[in-house]
Amino acid sequence: MSPTVQARLFKGVKDVLPEELLARNQLMQTLVAVFERYGFGPLETPAMEYLDILLGKYGTEGDKLIYKLAYKGGETLALRYDLTVPLSRVVAMNPDLPMPFKRWQVQPVWRADRAQPAQGRFREFIQCDVDTVGTASLAADAENVAVVHDGIRALGIDDFLVRINNRKLLAGIREWAGIAPAQEADLFRSIDKLDKIGLDGVRAELAKLDLPAEPVEKVLGVMEITGAPEEVLARAEATLAGSERAAEGVSELRELLEGVAALGVALDRMQIDLYLTRGLDYYTGPIYEVNLTSIEKFGSLAGGGRYDDLAGVYGNATVPATGVSIGLSRVLSALRKLDLLKSRTTTSQVLVARLEDTPIAECLRICSELRAGGIACETYYDPDRLKKQFQLAERKGIPIVALAGASELAAGTVNLKHLARSEQVTVPRAEFVEKAAALLSS
Amino acid sequence: MSPTVQARLFKGVKDVLPEELLARNQLMQTLVAVFERYGFGPLETPAMEYLDILLGKYGTEGDKLIYKLAYKGGETLALRYDLTVPLSRVVAMNPDLPMPFKRWQVQPVWRADRAQPAQGRFREFIQCDVDTVGTASLAADAENVAVVHDGIRALGIDDFLVRINNRKLLAGIREWAGIAPAQEADLFRSIDKLDKIGLDGVRAELAKLDLPAEPVEKVLGVMEITGAPEEVLARAEATLAGSERAAEGVSELRELLEGVAALGVALDRMQIDLYLTRGLDYYTGPIYEVNLTSIEKFGSLAGGGRYDDLAGVYGNATVPATGVSIGLSRVLSALRKLDLLKSRTTTSQVLVARLEDTPIAECLRICSELRAGGIACETYYDPDRLKKQFQLAERKGIPIVALAGASELAAGTVNLKHLARSEQVTVPRAEFVEKAAALLSS
Repeated sequence: MSPTVQARLFKGVKDVLPEELLARNQLMQTLVAVFERYGFGPLETPAMEYLDILLGKYGTEGDKLIYKLAYKGGETLALRYDLTVPLSRVVAMNPDLPMPFKRWQVQPVWRADRAQPAQGRFREFIQCDVDTVGTASLAADAENVAVVHDGIRALGIDDFLVRINNRKLLAGIREWAGIAPAQEADLFRSIDKLDKIGLDGVRAELAKLDLPAEPVEKVLGVMEITGAPEEVLARAEATLAGSERAAEGVSELRELLEGVAALGVALDRMQIDLYLTRGLDYYTGPIYEVNLTSIEKFGSLAGGGRYDDLAGVYGNATVPATGVSIGLSRVLSALRKLDLLKSRTTTSQVLVARLEDTPIAECLRICSELRAGGIACETYYDPDRLKKQFQLAERKGIPIVALAGASELAAGTVNLKHLARSEQVTVPRAEFVEKAAALLSS
Repeated sequence: MSPTVQARLFKGVKDVLPEELLARNQLMQTLVAVFERYGFGPLETPAMEYLDILLGKYGTEGDKLIYKLAYKGGETLALRYDLTVPLSRVVAMNPDLPMPFKRWQVQPVWRADRAQPAQGRFREFIQCDVDTVGTASLAADAENVAVVHDGIRALGIDDFLVRINNRKLLAGIREWAGIAPAQEADLFRSIDKLDKIGLDGVRAELAKLDLPAEPVEKVLGVMEITGAPEEVLARAEATLAGSERAAEGVSELRELLEGVAALGVALDRMQIDLYLTRGLDYYTGPIYEVNLTSIEKFGSLAGGGRYDDLAGVYGNATVPATGVSIGLSRVLSALRKLDLLKSRTTTSQVLVARLEDTPIAECLRICSELRAGGIACETYYDPDRLKKQFQLAERKGIPIVALAGASELAAGTVNLKHLARSEQVTVPRAEFVEKAAALLSS
């Protein structure tokens, strides 16, 4: 055993200390209640997957970003990279699973990417996914939009929009403009940046990629269609008349909107963004992103879409699926910026101080009485200067200090001090729990 | 991208499907509420740690059991093996952490051990630890016993005992009997099996290890002391008179018992087992295990103790610590065997059936109304034979099917069928949510 090892952490991973985790756990509790109200059940899968299963989806590009285990030559096992591949594997391995399979899953994933902790880019991070596998019905897509909508509202966030689009509509636009399928990826990768670099920026980028100018202008013309959802759909329909694929995309968008409305989502929260492209080789139908309207350039809180070709990789028949991912750290940071985070910073609500003349058993009894009254608390274990004990309570954010020295014990009283309000009362032992509860709730 | 990859799972790891995870999540919610009432806050640490940090505690023996990452030659990073080393690292890296640091942590750990899934031995499993770092006070040990006691009772388990002992008392017994310190590990490894192999078995094993017969008999004589806690302590004290170490151990056990009593634990739940040894090179003071009394040879539900020398490995001053680990899968299995598991097996309480003449938007609206009334539900997406829809509800354990075909929609009614009770009612749309709630709670 080496006598001293320097305590340190791999770059790009982090500890989550109680203050932050209390907030995240509270956030998760709210979200999970919404997920489960929609009939999604929890799923957990192992951290380690066979490498060929991960590469079956990500191919050689994924290979660089996957953490492999040294086990058996280093080419057998690896850490999961997302929650979608494990979901597909679970579906393929459990043919008896009742379908459609609706699951939520919140677990860490690992990516051997460049770490930028200051920008919130980590090599280990929690993913929060909600997916429905086994139905091609757009009602499932509508539910996923609604579950995220309800979840974000349940957290107290009200200033947000759901931007939607459809991959079939995008393919239709490309086809209608006369751009070859082989150039679709380049085209949409540029268009996806329209928000950031503007129409001229996209135009310049596409020119550099040798995309023909006239068809590109036709596409960019469509991208300029904005307005209320029904208006965008009507204008897109008129412009793209004749393209079967585009018509299918428009029709799917209409069905999605009808679905979310039936699920109680106000339609003025929905915005059709024809330049939203998301995950180029992944999605096959509706796609969407949720964005704050009150903070500019904040990044999306959630995003998802339909991916009907995924599970087929594992030797099975293709299974239709649709899913959404919620960016937990993004949402936490939004709650902080919007001052909506009402979480405790510490668990204990009372610190039971220990005076030189308080037997420890008496401190424990006081704690026990508080806990029986539903109040989380802790005791100071060793007698110490009161100042130090109050400082600990302040540092931990514990609102109340309870004191019972020899005189209080003799008199059958407890002294309660509310730190932030500098309020102090001495109450009979039989009433102190009730009084502490009153101080905490007032 | 390979066209077909066989979906499979590494031996010794497993998926946790919704039915089991709903039960585990409910169990965890109960336990966490108890942990936090005692002032323990949540902590999460990364899966990957530097290998030298893991080996700093486990040494070369641990080396074989640790999953290393292939990253940088395979000797840099590894997956955590337990939650205690990460805790020590967190304490060493965060000198500003308010002390004592009380944390609970529930995360998976990985061990490259022989997998025996049938016996519940996995290579990835969830650990559930509660530790207090930074105080030598035995009140912290008493709290850990009490937090487990309260947690297990909150789950509905009542037939259990907390078996306690003390490493100082054990060392005192060895010393008093005249056995060399170098033979302590062998001695206690055998004695730990007393429950399984009996006194004669231990005697035979120790003879094979060349431990001197007479001192061994002295030790075994002490091991035969049983009775109520105070009786065991009094007899041990009398027998071991003169051994300072033994006296210290007895005094610590007394203090622990006084502490747990102050915390509301009935003393007839506490049993001093002088042959309880647990984790030979790890613990330094009180040790304990929680066992069911209603099921024989079930293994312990939880166990822990004080380990005052741990955090010192990482170049820091020694920090006293005490902790307890709850065996979640053991507890789950106990709840099952005792028929105390009252968990839902699925999230949805109502399946909204879809008839050929029900528009999907209407199904979604019915769902939305149920959810607004707090009832978790899901819809059948595509029209199908009713028999198939009822079968899905049965397979998933969804108690109620709601139906609204053209005639119900025209009449403004919804038909509710409680599957298990074969009860069926048709109620006005305005009242169906209330009626469904009544059916579910009756």
